[in-house]
Amino acid sequence: MTEAIIAIFVGPADHGHILLELFIALLAAKLAAELFERIRQPAVVGEILAGIVIGPAVLKLIQPTGVMDAFAEIGVIFLLFTVGLETRPSDIFKVGRRATVVAVLGVIVPFVAGWGLLRLWPGHSRIEAIFLGAAMVATSVGITARVLAGRGLLSSEASRLILAAAVIDDIIGLLVLAVVSSLATGQVNYVSIILVGSLAIAFTVSVIAFGARVVNRVERPVRNLKIDHSLLIFALVLCFGLAAVSSLIGIAGIIGAFLAGVALSELTDGTRLHQQSQALTEFTTPFFLISIGMKLNLAIFDSWSVVWLSLVVIVVAILTKFIGCGLGALGMGRQRAVQVGAGMIPRGEVGIVVAQIGLALAAVSDAIYGVVLAMSVITTLAAPPLIKAAFSREPAVVQDSEYDDVELQEEIG
Amino acid sequence: MTEAIIAIFVGPADHGHILLELFIALLAAKLAAELFERIRQPAVVGEILAGIVIGPAVLKLIQPTGVMDAFAEIGVIFLLFTVGLETRPSDIFKVGRRATVVAVLGVIVPFVAGWGLLRLWPGHSRIEAIFLGAAMVATSVGITARVLAGRGLLSSEASRLILAAAVIDDIIGLLVLAVVSSLATGQVNYVSIILVGSLAIAFTVSVIAFGARVVNRVERPVRNLKIDHSLLIFALVLCFGLAAVSSLIGIAGIIGAFLAGVALSELTDGTRLHQQSQALTEFTTPFFLISIGMKLNLAIFDSWSVVWLSLVVIVVAILTKFIGCGLGALGMGRQRAVQVGAGMIPRGEVGIVVAQIGLALAAVSDAIYGVVLAMSVITTLAAPPLIKAAFSREPAVVQDSEYDDVELQEEIG
Repeated sequence: MTEAIIAIFVGPADHGHILLELFIALLAAKLAAELFERIRQPAVVGEILAGIVIGPAVLKLIQPTGVMDAFAEIGVIFLLFTVGLETRPSDIFKVGRRATVVAVLGVIVPFVAGWGLLRLWPGHSRIEAIFLGAAMVATSVGITARVLAGRGLLSSEASRLILAAAVIDDIIGLLVLAVVSSLATGQVNYVSIILVGSLAIAFTVSVIAFGARVVNRVERPVRNLKIDHSLLIFALVLCFGLAAVSSLIGIAGIIGAFLAGVALSELTDGTRLHQQSQALTEFTTPFFLISIGMKLNLAIFDSWSVVWLSLVVIVVAILTKFIGCGLGALGMGRQRAVQVGAGMIPRGEVGIVVAQIGLALAAVSDAIYGVVLAMSVITTLAAPPLIKAAFSREPAVVQDSEYDDVELQEEIG
Repeated sequence: MTEAIIAIFVGPADHGHILLELFIALLAAKLAAELFERIRQPAVVGEILAGIVIGPAVLKLIQPTGVMDAFAEIGVIFLLFTVGLETRPSDIFKVGRRATVVAVLGVIVPFVAGWGLLRLWPGHSRIEAIFLGAAMVATSVGITARVLAGRGLLSSEASRLILAAAVIDDIIGLLVLAVVSSLATGQVNYVSIILVGSLAIAFTVSVIAFGARVVNRVERPVRNLKIDHSLLIFALVLCFGLAAVSSLIGIAGIIGAFLAGVALSELTDGTRLHQQSQALTEFTTPFFLISIGMKLNLAIFDSWSVVWLSLVVIVVAILTKFIGCGLGALGMGRQRAVQVGAGMIPRGEVGIVVAQIGLALAAVSDAIYGVVLAMSVITTLAAPPLIKAAFSREPAVVQDSEYDDVELQEEIG
């Protein structure tokens, strides 16, 4: 049949194209994951590499469209929501003080190193150096959460510390970004920055402190609603509601989704809700991972000077986060410190957003933007093997499988 | 805090905006659903009305963007996939002959009526009349499936017939659209049309006939894969794969998703897979319903002549489908005939796609496009109460709830 006929039928809305893209992304991600599992490598690395292969860099099967971006965003939202469901508020409070130290050191060390590096490297402005430092600050905890969840290690002490530190790190990152952006536009509005910062802290602390109590109180009315699956619907509304609020305040949407999960974690119905949200996570997370891979633009490596700078920045980004956060966690012993240091390495999309803002403000050159992109993707890609190695001596936990303990709990409950 | 700071933080990718839109859509849909359940009206009507209210027609909280469209598409894909999971291949074959009669009559009667109406109505061309007829042909089974599933009536005899007839109706609709589009461009390529038609029929029949057997054979290897939730992943890949193939052939993506569900329906693990896909459906279907409501552009009703024509077309669209399909099902008794007639009424997005193509080919005026839009939305809105009334004497089935029969089946199985 002729292509014209097909083009007519697929129609102006081009829905067939979206279905095909989702199919290709899902299939490629999961084939790569299976392959990596078989050669005993982290599945997430396989899925990110699949994104590089099917994306614009190599096969060009899929383009990073708005729709793909949205699915990637929803993927990491559900991922952190599900992780939140396994985290009780007390888990976070218990590690609060140490997590703050980890987060603060994990911000200062990379920032100073990134800034200092570009001040010494010839041909870059003061403001560009500040932006690179800021881009190296924010940990993107999605990848770490995926690796830890896949290995059933979310309840370990180091995992709790990583999650709590990532939340705090995100708030500090927000404040750093606010200051840096103000510097670039030439007018630092301290009142605004302090207000935004206080709002972010107040929001986070109050959801952790009171969220679970509020949720437990409305549980019965929610169950009595007439709509089907009312508890799941309530959970989804809470997840997207808090994610949207986080975004509006200025911290990452995934922080809100994580907090929503934490608030829901004490519900007695946790097992069923957890299984339902796992289905949502399994469907959407591959798009998040594929999307990270797609963002790697191999063209920037045409210039040797950019390649060199990228390599140095990547090594510095990995080492400074590892050392900064590891130092903060040293009180828990060397093994735990190594685990926490490794878990905080991935920068993911947060660094990219910083660089995009710098580009939009004309404070950052295309070269530095490319370097930050490479740093974000490659720290994310490098983290899973390091996390795996750091946690290798951790007692093995039964993995989630088709036949997991949920069934048993449901029979008992 | 200043808006500028917020704008900076939300960032160029504008992710916060997507989260906020999904939150608003989900909340509005489910509040409306709850309200409608309480006043004993179909929840789907409430969700579509919520779309009208929050969409561009009234409150303008949400715009129909590409991302919203994609979520709507995924919503109806999962909806039909879940319905397919409850439909065994034998269910379809058993009603095959009668379903063909229902589908054919349900195409001929509305087409002739739509065409004849516009030939008699002053001021419209021959080709415009043909397009209106074609737009009235294709049933959009999503709404009916949602209503029947919500009331636990998917396994009734009439439901099976409706689903099978909707699949056949979609293939005939494809062929009608092919002929009509060719007429508009002035060159009818019969070879192409016959090829596309044969391909669509061969695809559908072979998936129904052999799909389940193939799936049952690969079940064990799939379960033995190393990745987590391998069966769910396999099901998702199959769902999007067949949906993409359907789209490429030219039939609706939802037909492929439905067929994927049918192919998976005999898996012994049906209960768990069904529960997981229900979670995906519950999350995404509201966007499908909201999206239908958003498409209703109230501005077209500024002109009285358009309002009159719309009203007449809507009444004709409802009556002709009801009578045509009802006649086809009369052999099963009057009650069943009424049920089938009512179930085939909604036109949904299919009629809109036809009108969009007509608009793109300059064969259809803006007024007729608006009329088709109104016809699609309002037949969809009118169907649930009619379906509810038609099925009111059906033996009550226990509704899906948080504590449904899945648990029992899992304990037994």
